[in-house]
Amino acid sequence: MLGVCYYPEHWPRSLWAHDAQRMAELGIGFARIGEFAWALMEPEPGQFEFGWLDDAIGTLGDAGLKVMLGTPTATPPKWLIDSVPDVLAYDRDGRVRGFGSRRHYCFSSGNYRRESRRITEVLAKRYGGNGTVSMWQTDNEFGCHDTVRSYSPMARDAFRLWLKAKYGDIGALNEAWGNVFWSMLYRSFDEIELPNLTVTEANPSHWLDFYRFSSDQVISFHREQAAIIREHAPDALITHNAMGHFTDYDHFALGAEVDILTWDSYPLGFLSQSRKPDGFKAEYLRQGNPDFAGFHHDLYRGCGKWAVIEQQPGPVNWAPDNPAPLPGMLKLWSLEALAHGAEFTAPFRWRQAPFAQEQNHAGLLRPDDQPAAGYGEIAEVRDVLPALSDAKGEAKVALVFDYDSLWMAEIQPQGSGWHTLDICMEWYAAARSLGLDVDVVAPGRDLSAYDMVLVPALLHVSQGALDALKASGARIVVGPRCGSKDENGNVPEGLAPGRLRELIHLTVARSETVPGHGGNAGVGAWHVWRDEVDTALEPSLQDTEGRPILYQHGRVRMFTALPDDALLRFVVKQAASDAGLEVVDLPEGLRLRTGRGQRFAFNYAKMPRSLPDGVGPADGFTVGGRMVPPGGAAVWEA
Amino acid sequence: MLGVCYYPEHWPRSLWAHDAQRMAELGIGFARIGEFAWALMEPEPGQFEFGWLDDAIGTLGDAGLKVMLGTPTATPPKWLIDSVPDVLAYDRDGRVRGFGSRRHYCFSSGNYRRESRRITEVLAKRYGGNGTVSMWQTDNEFGCHDTVRSYSPMARDAFRLWLKAKYGDIGALNEAWGNVFWSMLYRSFDEIELPNLTVTEANPSHWLDFYRFSSDQVISFHREQAAIIREHAPDALITHNAMGHFTDYDHFALGAEVDILTWDSYPLGFLSQSRKPDGFKAEYLRQGNPDFAGFHHDLYRGCGKWAVIEQQPGPVNWAPDNPAPLPGMLKLWSLEALAHGAEFTAPFRWRQAPFAQEQNHAGLLRPDDQPAAGYGEIAEVRDVLPALSDAKGEAKVALVFDYDSLWMAEIQPQGSGWHTLDICMEWYAAARSLGLDVDVVAPGRDLSAYDMVLVPALLHVSQGALDALKASGARIVVGPRCGSKDENGNVPEGLAPGRLRELIHLTVARSETVPGHGGNAGVGAWHVWRDEVDTALEPSLQDTEGRPILYQHGRVRMFTALPDDALLRFVVKQAASDAGLEVVDLPEGLRLRTGRGQRFAFNYAKMPRSLPDGVGPADGFTVGGRMVPPGGAAVWEA
Amino acid sequence: MLGVCYYPEHWPRSLWAHDAQRMAELGIGFARIGEFAWALMEPEPGQFEFGWLDDAIGTLGDAGLKVMLGTPTATPPKWLIDSVPDVLAYDRDGRVRGFGSRRHYCFSSGNYRRESRRITEVLAKRYGGNGTVSMWQTDNEFGCHDTVRSYSPMARDAFRLWLKAKYGDIGALNEAWGNVFWSMLYRSFDEIELPNLTVTEANPSHWLDFYRFSSDQVISFHREQAAIIREHAPDALITHNAMGHFTDYDHFALGAEVDILTWDSYPLGFLSQSRKPDGFKAEYLRQGNPDFAGFHHDLYRGCGKWAVIEQQPGPVNWAPDNPAPLPGMLKLWSLEALAHGAEFTAPFRWRQAPFAQEQNHAGLLRPDDQPAAGYGEIAEVRDVLPALSDAKGEAKVALVFDYDSLWMAEIQPQGSGWHTLDICMEWYAAARSLGLDVDVVAPGRDLSAYDMVLVPALLHVSQGALDALKASGARIVVGPRCGSKDENGNVPEGLAPGRLRELIHLTVARSETVPGHGGNAGVGAWHVWRDEVDTALEPSLQDTEGRPILYQHGRVRMFTALPDDALLRFVVKQAASDAGLEVVDLPEGLRLRTGRGQRFAFNYAKMPRSLPDGVGPADGFTVGGRMVPPGGAAVWEA
Ligand SMILES: [Zn+2]
Ligand SMILES: [Zn+2]
Ligand SMILES: [Zn+2]
Repeated sequence: MLGVCYYPEHWPRSLWAHDAQRMAELGIGFARIGEFAWALMEPEPGQFEFGWLDDAIGTLGDAGLKVMLGTPTATPPKWLIDSVPDVLAYDRDGRVRGFGSRRHYCFSSGNYRRESRRITEVLAKRYGGNGTVSMWQTDNEFGCHDTVRSYSPMARDAFRLWLKAKYGDIGALNEAWGNVFWSMLYRSFDEIELPNLTVTEANPSHWLDFYRFSSDQVISFHREQAAIIREHAPDALITHNAMGHFTDYDHFALGAEVDILTWDSYPLGFLSQSRKPDGFKAEYLRQGNPDFAGFHHDLYRGCGKWAVIEQQPGPVNWAPDNPAPLPGMLKLWSLEALAHGAEFTAPFRWRQAPFAQEQNHAGLLRPDDQPAAGYGEIAEVRDVLPALSDAKGEAKVALVFDYDSLWMAEIQPQGSGWHTLDICMEWYAAARSLGLDVDVVAPGRDLSAYDMVLVPALLHVSQGALDALKASGARIVVGPRCGSKDENGNVPEGLAPGRLRELIHLTVARSETVPGHGGNAGVGAWHVWRDEVDTALEPSLQDTEGRPILYQHGRVRMFTALPDDALLRFVVKQAASDAGLEVVDLPEGLRLRTGRGQRFAFNYAKMPRSLPDGVGPADGFTVGGRMVPPGGAAVWEA
Repeated sequence: MLGVCYYPEHWPRSLWAHDAQRMAELGIGFARIGEFAWALMEPEPGQFEFGWLDDAIGTLGDAGLKVMLGTPTATPPKWLIDSVPDVLAYDRDGRVRGFGSRRHYCFSSGNYRRESRRITEVLAKRYGGNGTVSMWQTDNEFGCHDTVRSYSPMARDAFRLWLKAKYGDIGALNEAWGNVFWSMLYRSFDEIELPNLTVTEANPSHWLDFYRFSSDQVISFHREQAAIIREHAPDALITHNAMGHFTDYDHFALGAEVDILTWDSYPLGFLSQSRKPDGFKAEYLRQGNPDFAGFHHDLYRGCGKWAVIEQQPGPVNWAPDNPAPLPGMLKLWSLEALAHGAEFTAPFRWRQAPFAQEQNHAGLLRPDDQPAAGYGEIAEVRDVLPALSDAKGEAKVALVFDYDSLWMAEIQPQGSGWHTLDICMEWYAAARSLGLDVDVVAPGRDLSAYDMVLVPALLHVSQGALDALKASGARIVVGPRCGSKDENGNVPEGLAPGRLRELIHLTVARSETVPGHGGNAGVGAWHVWRDEVDTALEPSLQDTEGRPILYQHGRVRMFTALPDDALLRFVVKQAASDAGLEVVDLPEGLRLRTGRGQRFAFNYAKMPRSLPDGVGPADGFTVGGRMVPPGGAAVWEA
Repeated sequence: MLGVCYYPEHWPRSLWAHDAQRMAELGIGFARIGEFAWALMEPEPGQFEFGWLDDAIGTLGDAGLKVMLGTPTATPPKWLIDSVPDVLAYDRDGRVRGFGSRRHYCFSSGNYRRESRRITEVLAKRYGGNGTVSMWQTDNEFGCHDTVRSYSPMARDAFRLWLKAKYGDIGALNEAWGNVFWSMLYRSFDEIELPNLTVTEANPSHWLDFYRFSSDQVISFHREQAAIIREHAPDALITHNAMGHFTDYDHFALGAEVDILTWDSYPLGFLSQSRKPDGFKAEYLRQGNPDFAGFHHDLYRGCGKWAVIEQQPGPVNWAPDNPAPLPGMLKLWSLEALAHGAEFTAPFRWRQAPFAQEQNHAGLLRPDDQPAAGYGEIAEVRDVLPALSDAKGEAKVALVFDYDSLWMAEIQPQGSGWHTLDICMEWYAAARSLGLDVDVVAPGRDLSAYDMVLVPALLHVSQGALDALKASGARIVVGPRCGSKDENGNVPEGLAPGRLRELIHLTVARSETVPGHGGNAGVGAWHVWRDEVDTALEPSLQDTEGRPILYQHGRVRMFTALPDDALLRFVVKQAASDAGLEVVDLPEGLRLRTGRGQRFAFNYAKMPRSLPDGVGPADGFTVGGRMVPPGGAAVWEA
């Protein structure tokens, strides 16, 4: 269940065998290699050099390791950029994005698609039958550095074709987008431009389709490589490595195309980049947001089989500030991934590179080959592995998450404080802080296994999403703004909450946004967004100025204003109690998780935390005990 | 005195007759239509479809309404952009501003001027004699989305011609601009570029002429359309709709070209966008700045006949945050416009559109055709109308406002805290908070009717402006920095305050700017700007460090430092008392206005306000009473 | 020792003689002229007009003044831009930087190099033998307005040649840059692009070489002009005017090419632009940072002979806010420059221009020819001059400053709070606030004359830099992060502190960055940066959480976390005491300096300061006395 990211091409061959042996000793089962090495595989156009790669794979295999081999398409060499036209992407300002770092290609470049298939086929043919190569990764971190959406002529042409395929008739598009507004009516698909660089904001439906198109281009780029790999390596597992706090493409769609969806987990870097208040950032500076990794584990588990392929091992180089993790955090993060059901977890990277962009990014080894702080923690994880079974956790709480809805709100925020992913993570945190395990699921998925369903920000409620909610017997908590959009991102027939009216009888007459605090409601406050509704229902909660903020109808609760953390936790706790779920008020920073035949406690706080009464045994822990140190974990048999 | 903005093309024809009937019932006298409908009028180049428009006008006319017809030039169709070269504007970064929203044209495009005249002539010929069409609007919101200034090759060429016409000889331009500085001397007008994308700031005189040229281009664009309309519809009134807090073209100049200057009043959106401190924004979140609408009413009244053609009816979609107005605000805003002398006021829009960019912008009706919150408030306004006469208000206070001066300070701010329009609104607010009615007037206008004249930020004092001030018998209060520029934006002969030295005998030796607070003066403080002067006068006010901040000579007071609100109100009150004006210290948020044979009180506060002693009768109010609720109005016979 | 900046071309000839006479009376020995006058020297291509310049020089010479003549290459005329291709620079966004202000040329333009040599030769031939012209200035403020680095095709081509010359073989470059990372391997120098507009950050070694190349281009541009001037004016002194808080080129390298390095000192403008907290800015609003001018004097003294050629005389026009100096500041700044060893100091400018970009920039005279506030202060300086000898100050403290290291940290900041120049100025301030004189020196310079050496941020420690430190007998204080880079900006062999391990036996295992405050250590705190080290040494200081922050080995102290001002001053004071230096705790804002046979005290505080006990005589001061007024100076014989 342990892997590691490794770049043999960065190191003298004399180190390779020793590296492989140390990996094996550390309990590492596979190394991920190759994903940035195109220039080494094909140093001149059509002239391949695979001797080094053969040897690297051989050396790893000899030590008993398997290999995950990456296609190198995130880093086409300079000669390719110079000799193949129309490869580079364009940014939103209309500028070509040049060579000199990585991800310098446009997903809509037909020429690059051809090159991508070519190098993939060469690799798949050569290593498809290699017994050591048990897994393949396509490319690397699709979309990193804002690369999902390209504003190139190639993207424009592909977008027109995509629209034509979707709408067939230009009249249908004009109708769907409401192009009668501001004389935006088109006479043919060839008149449609990309939505950037307009005088004021472009039509939101135009943007929405461009977001969807761009997401689809990512999936089809992957699909082309996967089909070639599958042909030549029918038994290997295919993956791609997703990122955290990244929503530019639909990960549920990618999940359907891979055998395992892997992701890259950097809790400290992401906390530094996040919108959390400074006090929170200071409190969790060296641990990360206690719900960041968990949310993403549970989100990507909703996409199918999953794992962590890059785990932060120490300070990184790319966030505004890059603190060192508390001692124990690498162990904590690794066990947490396994507790949530990861197939494996792999620190990034084996050895810190002394050069280039990531030279300040820690590895398990320092550039001088000495163990870095994380090395020993991985050894500790190795020693825990025998106690872990393959038993799956069974969450009784689902949180419905929808990329389409997120895009709609991103395109038309309407209020400065609305950030969909942050909101969904807050709802997730509310349940997790009550000791509950959560599945993050796509709208429309069967919900019959759940006792409580959270629907924080489902702006567009499809028929399937509605049907699943109706069919579920669960307690349902719905956020404001839900159901406010139809399939084209427009106001739904009969106004918000659209199809959700079948669950709770109210109509949103109008919505307002305010900067920050909106109103107090005793148990908490609302902020940012408020719906005014027509309904015969009596409000369940009002603020001190008499504004309704929660309605309930049977098993369904709906907020009509965006709750802050306290209010949210209060209502989620009520709903969980109604649902018969056992809840526990966890101390700040402590999180629980059941899986692998064990129950886990993780302490993200910078002070020790005791397990609450009723949680865990008196003794006999697999790992730790009732007092969990900062950055520590406790594990006991479930 | 009521109109409404209406887009029949957004709705099925089956709704039109019912719409017209409801408008009539609501007391609405006319509908503004057509200003974004070019693609529906001319769906293919040269192929016109006017049946729908004939029917829409007919249906409205049948219900007894008049129509204000807009030329559709703010939204040329895609086919026009694709088939006519050199239409699109360029932004300050040198990028073409594309199709996909609105206002995608350059005022200096000769080709677009031709297209503008062509579609105007088609419309004017068809509807010029239509008895229902009583008013015409040219284009829509000139300059919205930063479109006054285009940095296109067409603009460059037109600018050169404009400069040649102004200066005749290149030597005169070099002299006026001081081009001997930094070797910026030109040998011919053809050497002159636009002032953007220079290495550091371009010559401020260069910018100033470019600002003036750009403003002139707007006016001449309007003039071309107006001439064609006038020819075919000699009896119709011609208007254009200006905006709020917008100064990129000279509205006094546009005012001279229209029969009525209309404007678009969105008090909540503008508060959200403004620089007011957060506390102020929270206090007036759902009411707007109490002086925002009033200032603009009084400014545009200074341009000639005027009206409100777009009145915010509920939450809008385009501000950072978009709160719902307090109940009563639409009525308050509407009555306030009429109190200040508006010919009419028209909510924007009749029915909220469920699609495209403005789908979250409220209307009088919701997208589901039910009345929105504002609908009933307009009915209340209708019921007040019979009590209002045509009598005009007679302000005894004038505030001199100059676009040219504003541009000079915008081009050369010299201090981070100087914002001319904000300053002028603060001076306006000082007078208004004392219960005074104010006329905002262009420099040079006859001031003989006024008892007090405020001159907050007249950087350039023309001979005409000076003559008017000298001829006036009024008490005059002048701000710092006034008279600091000559006609080319340069230091005037004899230094600041230039011609104003004829009013008060002092010379500004130097000026300084400070970030925020400058010094205390007991009754208030100064901030941002301070002049050091040579004078034989004794200062009337000094700060605690002995720095003079106010001088007086006879009926003229001049600040030598920028006053904060408290200091400003103190001095304005003094001057008003000297002038024999009756002043009253209004409670925060309450404003008074006399007009239409009535005296009005408007309460912008979020708590009730009583009329101060001595204001208003004991009873017998036309509207309301002595206690004015939040968002409420009181009206009594003047 | 006094000069002045003068632009005769801005004024009628009738003023010239009077100007020259007043200068002479004011004790001014020379006027700097001509540096922006290309369009007046050559109004049409190849047609020269030097009559005016002959007369101006003649008039000044007749009054007994000398002239510093500037080459006018910072402002090529419009005709040159229009007729010579490929002159303009490109900005980092890839846009051409146009004509209309100044510095509109690319250092890598071969065509502009030719034009630069041409006009320089014309001037040098004409005035090289003129007895009045005793000094020459090349161009003006190289790099102002972000012009060192151009992203033009010309720069790209020149960069390739520079790289080829440096590395010879492309393999060596690939190795030095670590291009094996992310497939950035190049096959030839012609494949290398400029590092801007990449998808994510370019290779830091790529940037570093581009920074070095760009710096070299500045030096070679200067060298071309200097060689021509030298040929025709062998006895004249050649200078260039550097700026403050500007590090885009290596001033030590320029210093080696000039006879005197001059610089432009604007203490108030730079305080307004700086990152100092608002409280500090308010305290020193009209005086400037007490260490800003001093640091730069001592830095440029480290480049060779030096002087101040532009001294702020009053409010300027280019900072966010532009306050007026306290009375006395121009005298203080002028004496301070002389105390630090300036060859001369020259206010900028003689008379305030009433037009163009700098019309709000004060001069010694106002635009109306009356004396401005600074005029009398220069007269006071003149009266002090006879008391000053040529004796040099002898600082016993050196501060090592390295442009290369600064660039490395700028390219890879790793933490949001790291700003190398600010850090170096804080270390400088710590020593200066203890009454110590400081030399700022390049790494590798002989340090044998010093008792204490401060090494705040020497990321790259060359062999020469190490040797000088080892050879020195001084107490050495080293900052965190020092020695963390090799010559290519990569992790050094054996990790940080690299070669410094020969001075103190520790190895940096890893480094972390935190936003702001890091930890308390009683006498102060650390912030921003912290190194974790492997060492057998006991820490000399730890924070309250037990993290080591200072180690000492013999005469060497090394911080392992970035100290705040209090902690820094504590440790510097310790080291100074160990070194036997006499230290005094100066009151805030007071600074001392020994030079010219005198001891000086300068009071930057806005309240009076007494000289501390033990500093200065009881009476008999050359200037002032024991109580130094705000903005005042005291001088007594050393
Ligand atoms: Zn959907
Ligand atoms: Zn004017
Ligand atoms: Zn170096």
